[in-house]
Amino acid sequence: MKKRLLLAFSLLVTGAQAQSPDSVTIRKIYNEVLTNSPSYEWLRHLTQQIGPRLSGSEGAQKAVDWTKQLMEQQGFDRVFLQEVMVPHWVRGAKEVAYIQNGKQKITVPIAALGGSVATPTKGIEAQVIEVKSFQELRDLGAGKVKGKIVFYNRPMDPTKLNTFEAYAGAVDQRGNGATEAARLGAVGTIVRSMTTVLDDNPHTGSMRYATGVPLIPSAAISTNGAERLSKMLKDNPGLTFYFKQNCETLPDAKSYNVVGEIKGSEKPDEIIVVGGHLDSWDIGQGAHDDGSGCMQSIEVLRALKALGIKPKRTLRAVMFMNEENGLRGGIGYADYAKKNNENHIAAVESDNGGFTPRGFGIVGTPEQRAKAIAWKPLLAPYGLHEIGAGSGGADIGPLAQLGTVLFGFKPDSQRYFDFHHAGIDRFESVNKRELELGAASMAALVYLLDQHGL
Amino acid sequence: MKKRLLLAFSLLVTGAQAQSPDSVTIRKIYNEVLTNSPSYEWLRHLTQQIGPRLSGSEGAQKAVDWTKQLMEQQGFDRVFLQEVMVPHWVRGAKEVAYIQNGKQKITVPIAALGGSVATPTKGIEAQVIEVKSFQELRDLGAGKVKGKIVFYNRPMDPTKLNTFEAYAGAVDQRGNGATEAARLGAVGTIVRSMTTVLDDNPHTGSMRYATGVPLIPSAAISTNGAERLSKMLKDNPGLTFYFKQNCETLPDAKSYNVVGEIKGSEKPDEIIVVGGHLDSWDIGQGAHDDGSGCMQSIEVLRALKALGIKPKRTLRAVMFMNEENGLRGGIGYADYAKKNNENHIAAVESDNGGFTPRGFGIVGTPEQRAKAIAWKPLLAPYGLHEIGAGSGGADIGPLAQLGTVLFGFKPDSQRYFDFHHAGIDRFESVNKRELELGAASMAALVYLLDQHGL
Repeated sequence: MKKRLLLAFSLLVTGAQAQSPDSVTIRKIYNEVLTNSPSYEWLRHLTQQIGPRLSGSEGAQKAVDWTKQLMEQQGFDRVFLQEVMVPHWVRGAKEVAYIQNGKQKITVPIAALGGSVATPTKGIEAQVIEVKSFQELRDLGAGKVKGKIVFYNRPMDPTKLNTFEAYAGAVDQRGNGATEAARLGAVGTIVRSMTTVLDDNPHTGSMRYATGVPLIPSAAISTNGAERLSKMLKDNPGLTFYFKQNCETLPDAKSYNVVGEIKGSEKPDEIIVVGGHLDSWDIGQGAHDDGSGCMQSIEVLRALKALGIKPKRTLRAVMFMNEENGLRGGIGYADYAKKNNENHIAAVESDNGGFTPRGFGIVGTPEQRAKAIAWKPLLAPYGLHEIGAGSGGADIGPLAQLGTVLFGFKPDSQRYFDFHHAGIDRFESVNKRELELGAASMAALVYLLDQHGL
Repeated sequence: MKKRLLLAFSLLVTGAQAQSPDSVTIRKIYNEVLTNSPSYEWLRHLTQQIGPRLSGSEGAQKAVDWTKQLMEQQGFDRVFLQEVMVPHWVRGAKEVAYIQNGKQKITVPIAALGGSVATPTKGIEAQVIEVKSFQELRDLGAGKVKGKIVFYNRPMDPTKLNTFEAYAGAVDQRGNGATEAARLGAVGTIVRSMTTVLDDNPHTGSMRYATGVPLIPSAAISTNGAERLSKMLKDNPGLTFYFKQNCETLPDAKSYNVVGEIKGSEKPDEIIVVGGHLDSWDIGQGAHDDGSGCMQSIEVLRALKALGIKPKRTLRAVMFMNEENGLRGGIGYADYAKKNNENHIAAVESDNGGFTPRGFGIVGTPEQRAKAIAWKPLLAPYGLHEIGAGSGGADIGPLAQLGTVLFGFKPDSQRYFDFHHAGIDRFESVNKRELELGAASMAALVYLLDQHGL
């Protein structure tokens, strides 16, 4: 009996602790989002009705128009566009690629990397040299590389618990592979797709050329294609690979960041940003990357408004343009902020997918980090255990120079690279509850930042 | 400069801490599973080649034979069957249901609940009375219920962060709804499916009858169907609902738990169980529920063996039979343990889906819990933050009487009830990395239990 009384008492105490004003409000935020959020239906529209949104494309412009209208409909205090000039790369007709092994011709799925040049109209056919690293390539030397197609085949490390670390450990092949290969006289590069899954989806992504080095075409090959090519090369190192791609870089195009704002009631000059990027690659629907982050950011402001929470500080939902192949929106946003002497105290970005929340990475001083980490007891009941030093987000990165504290929303990373930059990053790959929990987590953090500053 | 040195030093210290023998072994376990695990391909076979495995069915028998063979192939020290008699309920021909609203006839998807009786051959057609709780039903009284079909339509609460709590708050309608309705003279019951998703999949599950109360047929209706029926009832309370189901309870059938064992080298009489249940509902493939838990349990033993880890204590992977509609395997296993005077120090069950790991729930004394909670620093780097009092698992539950400490593997719960007991609980709904991380988490816990006891 005594034990039961004790238990009842300790439950009362826990209950009482849970009644701090912050915890009550956070509970309300989650209830609102999990009950009334339209964010999943917004995402359906953005991904299925508008679709791919590569910078400079018609889809990107439609997304600008639609999100502006959407935020206006929410009754935010101000919705405005920020003009930025963006790179305008187009894929052109679908790529063709095959392995020619004697008389055997095996078609494999590839996708030109963003920023790559086209092949000659008739395509390129050459012998293949497979490497796993730039060092291995350099050790081979020009004698073995000249005239060939370099095939980068180092997989993402499946043992990394955080798949973004595995990505970081492999993506040099995609970003700089063409330049490294061209220095040694290669005529093209084929890069294993950045995913741990074995399937037939090529994953595109950006690549860069260095000045003074020949521009050779570069494409991603599906992981199954990479495995097959590697296996066949072991049997016949003399086989050839053919590919043809039709991409092109057009003159820079005019585009926009889209910004929705709720004015602060006490400190309107202190701004808190929550955002994602509106552009996406062209071969999927940009559902996880980063339609989710955009819809969540608008939902943060919608939910706070619906609850009648009047922020002390000014809150902005920002749809950044051109994260994927230029970052012009992120850079432009920070430039505007600087020019207008705006004081951005904090920025939160969601660009790691619409998955179940795990926490937030923080970029700031140890004191600023400590203040946010002290909120953990308020956030851990919602599955947000991982709050600490980490990365913010590409688009909000340029705000760091202005002293803004950056927060990167950290959802579970296990499924992200299954979809990332591939044709299957579609609406159906996003789970409604997971998307909403992300929005609620971001809203809870924004609420705490607004209440307590940093 | 000084700051950098300090940073370097603190990284060294962290690195040194990470080198405890336990943390090194746990890292090896994760590496082994994430690199070499066949568990996803095993699950493919179990779900796609064998398929549904309801107790007493041909699929269940095939699963017994195949998992026995699979564990024998792994070279475990002993693989054996434990005979249990199981309920043998069969669905029969697919159900038919429609709403008859004047001349309008709208077909809706239903699935008979496990254990339900059939309707008469010509089906049942009756007026409908919608309620959200037993209290509401009782308040209406026999006068309003008699001769009608009771429609239970209280949704799972979407604001519960742990969806299992939301399930627990709604599942009384499925389990006891028929009996409660029959007491007031109802002729059948229709229950809103246990999921927060709005779709067209009915979710089956078990129900019970009380003695002395008429056995009336009971079925689950899809959430979209429930929404539609509810809306139409508001316009026309006099509409009728028709359903026909053809299920039947046959005599109990002979079946088995399947047990694979690695003998302990120091304390062979202390047994640690890791398990899931081999049976599944008949309308899906039982991928998350609970093919995942079974394949993970075998993977725990395979991975430890592959790493050359010789356990001090005896480890058993147990495929329990009949969790879904009888728990005869779980009860039988504990009975055998008692009869044979076996000392089960701990049991770990995975029956919450093959999703990304969050932690473990513990059932034991406060001292035993504290010992396991003290392992958190070893497990948190792998995303296992939620280690504390909780629930173990249905199948291992009966072992509690023998003093066994129970651990329930706790994956993220957000997507579970999208699939649970529905036709879409199929292989494709399981993610390879998430499945493997679950297996590695269970293996890490089993390793710690083996090394340190409780």
